[in-house]
Amino acid sequence: MFDQCVALLKQRGVEKTDIIDCVYYLQKRYIADLTLDRIEHYVDSVLNKREVQHAIITGIQIDILTEQGIFADERFNQLIMDDYSLYGVDEVLAYGICNLYGSIALTNFGYIDKVKPGIIGKLNEHTTQCNTFLDDIVGAIAASAASKLAHDREKKA
Amino acid sequence: MFDQCVALLKQRGVEKTDIIDCVYYLQKRYIADLTLDRIEHYVDSVLNKREVQHAIITGIQIDILTEQGIFADERFNQLIMDDYSLYGVDEVLAYGICNLYGSIALTNFGYIDKVKPGIIGKLNEHTTQCNTFLDDIVGAIAASAASKLAHDREKKA
Amino acid sequence: MFDQCVALLKQRGVEKTDIIDCVYYLQKRYIADLTLDRIEHYVDSVLNKREVQHAIITGIQIDILTEQGIFADERFNQLIMDDYSLYGVDEVLAYGICNLYGSIALTNFGYIDKVKPGIIGKLNEHTTQCNTFLDDIVGAIAASAASKLAHDREKKA
Amino acid sequence: MFDQCVALLKQRGVEKTDIIDCVYYLQKRYIADLTLDRIEHYVDSVLNKREVQHAIITGIQIDILTEQGIFADERFNQLIMDDYSLYGVDEVLAYGICNLYGSIALTNFGYIDKVKPGIIGKLNEHTTQCNTFLDDIVGAIAASAASKLAHDREKKA
Repeated sequence: MFDQCVALLKQRGVEKTDIIDCVYYLQKRYIADLTLDRIEHYVDSVLNKREVQHAIITGIQIDILTEQGIFADERFNQLIMDDYSLYGVDEVLAYGICNLYGSIALTNFGYIDKVKPGIIGKLNEHTTQCNTFLDDIVGAIAASAASKLAHDREKKA
Repeated sequence: MFDQCVALLKQRGVEKTDIIDCVYYLQKRYIADLTLDRIEHYVDSVLNKREVQHAIITGIQIDILTEQGIFADERFNQLIMDDYSLYGVDEVLAYGICNLYGSIALTNFGYIDKVKPGIIGKLNEHTTQCNTFLDDIVGAIAASAASKLAHDREKKA
Repeated sequence: MFDQCVALLKQRGVEKTDIIDCVYYLQKRYIADLTLDRIEHYVDSVLNKREVQHAIITGIQIDILTEQGIFADERFNQLIMDDYSLYGVDEVLAYGICNLYGSIALTNFGYIDKVKPGIIGKLNEHTTQCNTFLDDIVGAIAASAASKLAHDREKKA
Repeated sequence: MFDQCVALLKQRGVEKTDIIDCVYYLQKRYIADLTLDRIEHYVDSVLNKREVQHAIITGIQIDILTEQGIFADERFNQLIMDDYSLYGVDEVLAYGICNLYGSIALTNFGYIDKVKPGIIGKLNEHTTQCNTFLDDIVGAIAASAASKLAHDREKKA
């Protein structure tokens, strides 16, 4: 299911390198010699987790179906389409990912979700594609990889 | 959106009285003089919360679309259809509801989700309708109403 | 218990106006005519919640006992004293507060915890007093009040 | 820190075999050929996780200090001593553990916390020792080990 998730993200405009960039953004201030190669290992590890994969496929599917106007209630469909700030279910799914990686992952997510660096900002500004779940999922994967990186680094220290 | 949620639950086979029965099941051992009328007030209060309403409409919509085989990946569609125990996104949505009502709500949910009293058991045994999200949503609403009831009771005591 | 919590926060260097300032910092960009009076109402409401009060008293007590070197294991005592970034229990307590106020509260917390505006920055730089739990508790109260404010504002709109 | 946690649990009356029994209680209905040896591997794995260790040491320390009447406010001290059902911070710590192991861990915890099999029931009935945090911590470790076991089993299937 790993390949399927990577392909699905790509299809919606997110390359793995985009996620790696977000992790770098989060961790560069703590780790002087951080390399993109090392980050990739952690992003892959997060993408390999079953519950993360289920959240990715489910969330992106909701985005796609919303684009197709498939929600029975039109107003509700529009509310997701507009990434209405009080909708909340997109963040709930993202926290479902972050929770697996501990409290640092949650803090990282909250930060990245407000600052919107790189791809997260781009997804957010999209005018035709619905990225309501996608931007939070990408943020959650990056936040989780950054958390795992921080924890592993300490173990070795 | 309250009426829409009640109608949607009804359409999928869940009456408000079914949820009230679940709350009664959870609380009867703690409150000797518990009445169904009093419980209804708390179920309504939970159903009135915006984030709960969003979770109800989103979750049930996924159930319906899964029934229609709309998920691009057939295997994934089947996995939701079968309420695969390691899918997890349905519980994540349920926790999104319970978290709003504190730690007792979460404990109540875990218990009711295993024991499956009343309507939750019935939803779970359904063979044609997909109730993967619905049974957890109903459990979460009941668990949350029971938690709010317990907290309010203490305030008055 | 409300008065006790306000007094305890004050005793550790946090005035209610400090928390109000943090909420203002979080919400000013969304609400043009935001007043400090209006924010106070929401901070009070969060401080009035039983589970929040329990978290405040418990967390601050751990801070105080850590200062007194009361943890049996010295290394562990130092780890809390230093607000070791991977300790994590302080954030877990903070999330216990934020969860009650929905996903926006969690995002707000993550952001404020990284940016450390006002009192949160000051608490963090303290050299003699142990503020490991306190800074996260203050952040969580502010993040929760901001979330409640945002939700209520929409209701009226 | 693993050895320290095992010793601390033992000192408070919890053997690793007690936790293994709880996991067995949770999983026996799903896995016909489940052995205690296999479960031990998973309990060890949970006990090896840094955030779990921090929660164990912090929670048990609060129990011990409460026994010694160290909380400044006597009423509050009694409230923890009595494992007051609406205290909630003990469950918040437990959820901090369970969240790391996904949604099944949370459901398992809710169930075990109500049914109180084996050691959890014994801890709960104790009249002199304060086990307010301990019983939830033990439940959370067992629930998490059971969740990890279920996930790994599927991977191999």
